[in-house]
Amino acid sequence: MRRYTIGVDYGSLSARGVLADIENGEITAQAEYVYPHATMDTCLPDGTPLGEDWALQHPVDYEQALEVIIPALMRGVSPQQVVGLGIDFTASTVVPLDADFRPLCKDPEFAGEPHAWPKQWKHHAAQEEAKILHGILLEVCPEILDHFGGTVSMECLLAKAAETCRKAPRAYAKTAWFAEAGDYITSLLAGHPVCSLSAASAKAKWLQGKGYPDTEIFRRLHPDLENLTDKLLLNHKECVSGYPGQRVGVLCPAMAEKLGLQPGTPLSAFQMDAYSGMPGVGLCQPGSAILCMGTANSIMVLGQEPRPVFGATASLPDCYFPGIHGYAAGQASVGDGFAWFVRTCVPEQVREAAAREGLDIHRYLTRKAEKLSPGESGLLSLEWFNGDKSHPSMKLTGVMTGLTMQTRPEELYRMLLEATAYGARRILEHHENAGVKIHRLVACGGIAGKNKLMMQIYADVLGREIQVSTCTQAPALGAAIYAASAASDKPYQQVLFRAVEAMSWKETVLYRPRPEAQAVYEKLYQRYCALADFFTGPGGDIMAQLAQLKSQ
Amino acid sequence: MRRYTIGVDYGSLSARGVLADIENGEITAQAEYVYPHATMDTCLPDGTPLGEDWALQHPVDYEQALEVIIPALMRGVSPQQVVGLGIDFTASTVVPLDADFRPLCKDPEFAGEPHAWPKQWKHHAAQEEAKILHGILLEVCPEILDHFGGTVSMECLLAKAAETCRKAPRAYAKTAWFAEAGDYITSLLAGHPVCSLSAASAKAKWLQGKGYPDTEIFRRLHPDLENLTDKLLLNHKECVSGYPGQRVGVLCPAMAEKLGLQPGTPLSAFQMDAYSGMPGVGLCQPGSAILCMGTANSIMVLGQEPRPVFGATASLPDCYFPGIHGYAAGQASVGDGFAWFVRTCVPEQVREAAAREGLDIHRYLTRKAEKLSPGESGLLSLEWFNGDKSHPSMKLTGVMTGLTMQTRPEELYRMLLEATAYGARRILEHHENAGVKIHRLVACGGIAGKNKLMMQIYADVLGREIQVSTCTQAPALGAAIYAASAASDKPYQQVLFRAVEAMSWKETVLYRPRPEAQAVYEKLYQRYCALADFFTGPGGDIMAQLAQLKSQ
Repeated sequence: MRRYTIGVDYGSLSARGVLADIENGEITAQAEYVYPHATMDTCLPDGTPLGEDWALQHPVDYEQALEVIIPALMRGVSPQQVVGLGIDFTASTVVPLDADFRPLCKDPEFAGEPHAWPKQWKHHAAQEEAKILHGILLEVCPEILDHFGGTVSMECLLAKAAETCRKAPRAYAKTAWFAEAGDYITSLLAGHPVCSLSAASAKAKWLQGKGYPDTEIFRRLHPDLENLTDKLLLNHKECVSGYPGQRVGVLCPAMAEKLGLQPGTPLSAFQMDAYSGMPGVGLCQPGSAILCMGTANSIMVLGQEPRPVFGATASLPDCYFPGIHGYAAGQASVGDGFAWFVRTCVPEQVREAAAREGLDIHRYLTRKAEKLSPGESGLLSLEWFNGDKSHPSMKLTGVMTGLTMQTRPEELYRMLLEATAYGARRILEHHENAGVKIHRLVACGGIAGKNKLMMQIYADVLGREIQVSTCTQAPALGAAIYAASAASDKPYQQVLFRAVEAMSWKETVLYRPRPEAQAVYEKLYQRYCALADFFTGPGGDIMAQLAQLKSQ
Repeated sequence: MRRYTIGVDYGSLSARGVLADIENGEITAQAEYVYPHATMDTCLPDGTPLGEDWALQHPVDYEQALEVIIPALMRGVSPQQVVGLGIDFTASTVVPLDADFRPLCKDPEFAGEPHAWPKQWKHHAAQEEAKILHGILLEVCPEILDHFGGTVSMECLLAKAAETCRKAPRAYAKTAWFAEAGDYITSLLAGHPVCSLSAASAKAKWLQGKGYPDTEIFRRLHPDLENLTDKLLLNHKECVSGYPGQRVGVLCPAMAEKLGLQPGTPLSAFQMDAYSGMPGVGLCQPGSAILCMGTANSIMVLGQEPRPVFGATASLPDCYFPGIHGYAAGQASVGDGFAWFVRTCVPEQVREAAAREGLDIHRYLTRKAEKLSPGESGLLSLEWFNGDKSHPSMKLTGVMTGLTMQTRPEELYRMLLEATAYGARRILEHHENAGVKIHRLVACGGIAGKNKLMMQIYADVLGREIQVSTCTQAPALGAAIYAASAASDKPYQQVLFRAVEAMSWKETVLYRPRPEAQAVYEKLYQRYCALADFFTGPGGDIMAQLAQLKSQ
């Protein structure tokens, strides 16, 4: 009898589940549920309008996802065959819960209150709170910031909760728990509060041996915020906490019946979606790096012990795997930047030509760009169209150089692809310069699988082999692997690595640097660095002044 | 009885003539002749193909222009009323003439030889010859280069003639005279060779008291070039030379009859078209500057004595007016750059919106850009899309900074307008820093008359009043003014200034800097300078390397 675990990957607009064989990781079934409410960024279901930077979601979409996906996965499989369940979730996506552990927005009194709804990771209205909190931490305990690239993200749970406190005091008072959505769903499954230490560390600044930042810090942000950490699940008296791969509970009878699974099925602590691909593609050793390519690039690196890596926005122990120190860094504009370019800067005749060839505009431009040689266009760009995560305190913006009146759209497009590769190389070099050596690099994500030109450019620019995982469900498979670890009665430190080895996706497409292209890109990369150094060094004033004038 | 002079402005694609009253400059008639052969840049009339950088014209178009325009101007005017005739012409547009003073291309033997045809100013195939000549001059007599911004233009007569010598030795041997087209036409009118010292200075490096560069210099470029200066009209034994405004001959009987004018009508030495607008708009005193805005910007400044003005590509005495030292500088990409942008970077939806409002795309973007405030977009550009004439030896290219994923097409468009204003300010400051003070600035040209936003931005950026001349025929009127001076029996030093005063176009539209905008632009201009200084200084290697990789 084959045995399986289930992993459910809660993404931005849908959830995807896989049923994976615990012996070999074979995915024998998969299912998807597209959130009917998607991201609510203009108004609430009742029509209440939302501000410009808002991004909310509907908790029922999360709950429904389980009820659609799991029965779909279970066709032809008996409940006894499923030995574990784990999820990954976007983070920090924050669900305000009332004292009865019910999403506050379900309370009719608060249905029209935007702050009562789950704030999606990309909800960006807590910018001011993040800034104030950053200032306080810088003054009171700057060492906390060392773990977060010196910054406080406006996407983090603390900023989002503080925003509620300052902007909607009634909703804040009524919120008993600010829960990561991943913890909320896992708690629903378990029938008691659970908390992922991975997300608590990365998104709420909980640190091993230290806990959350001092309440005094929050009180300085706002008097009513003094009790903020009392509203975090980890401080719930019934909470069970653990890292992904650790068992934090078992499926409660009510949910088991609803989903068609056995009560008592072990549950793993949830993992953040950006991290969950790592076990999915089989990376769990120091010296491994993953490059997740999509609207933005996430670059995660595993190391042995903490090192001061410039630009890493998270540097935390155990969040991926026990005993492993993990770094997370990123580039804020990749696919998003290409989309902006196509939306804003691609002329009619290019669209028409693409349409004539029956190609999507990105594919058409890629095909034209493929015919160019490295350096041929004379163009060079800094891909900071959405800032540079390695310099969070600087208002950095995109740059294009080498433009002439002969410059063509496909040259601009290739320049943008190349710029993201230079930026990725710079991040990897920040790691290696700090002593975190990288022996193996795996790429995943939509762009990595689709755009061969881009991957060849990356291999040439990075000057190293890149394995592109052919797995399209890496985060969900990762969640299933964490579930397999949690299913064991042995300590997860003992079984998680073996689960990764057994179940992870093995098939990759290898890209090798081409020596000639590598030589040209070496020169271009040096110029990219010179340009980047100028705008973050002696010329830093230029972009700062532009940003200041813009904001006035 | 009113008395008139005729000015004919030979432009790139047509010639335009005016009949102007010598008492008050009133233009009582005007006429245009569009060259049937326009610019020949793909093949000769017989189908002989042309190289990529070629631009030839048909001499018959120049000749026909006189026969169409002058009779058209003379309707209702008696030949006795026309007391002088002058022309201005694009330069250096070079007509190879045989020993009989006939354009070589009219010789059936040479009709299929591209080098036998007039090379238009924008013929750019003599790049290599210009480069070699530059190297030789730099070694042998660098002081000559001081008059030309340290550079040898591939557009100059010497480079074009050298190209013929190296590439088509038979045509070179058969060419008795390499004539500026303006000299050729004036010679036709006079019935004997004439030579404009203004064009000889600016385009063939003839200097007062020194003459042409030494024959040894040309011999080093190519042995057969030793006799080049013998093939220049100034060395023709029957040549009459003079500056614009000086009489170099009178209308010969044959041409008088053909054109319906009186034989003996005085003729002025021709002026280069870029210079001829200066008297047309009434500028003839030290401290005056003209800004001619079109595909490129030409900036001409009048001073008292020679000063080392950085970036001036011509610094010559007497070429505009006797006793006045004139500087010419320019920006290589203005309207051309906007056209490139619209062609390459403006998306479909903008075109559609423009079409819905029935507006030309430039006008539509201008109207949207008008609604933006200075600094609002956070964007900054270096307008070097066609290089920077102030740094002729550097391969400089366009730069855009401040780009974000919210950047919109109209913001980019305004950024480009602003960049050309910063570039213009920098040129004016180069003059003032060298001690050439500017008291009055007049703008002319198509863009100046049409684009109010652009002119307001210029006034704000330059921080000075700009008078935009409403004259649409400034060069032709300038030629008529030079003709009026030549018509006098008195020395032109005595009468030219009075002719300018009497006949020049007086009506202007005044643009004043708005203090608030000026304050913002002051800050942006400082950042423009910082960026420009970086790419021409410590970061100079970046664009050089890009250019080098591109050329490989």
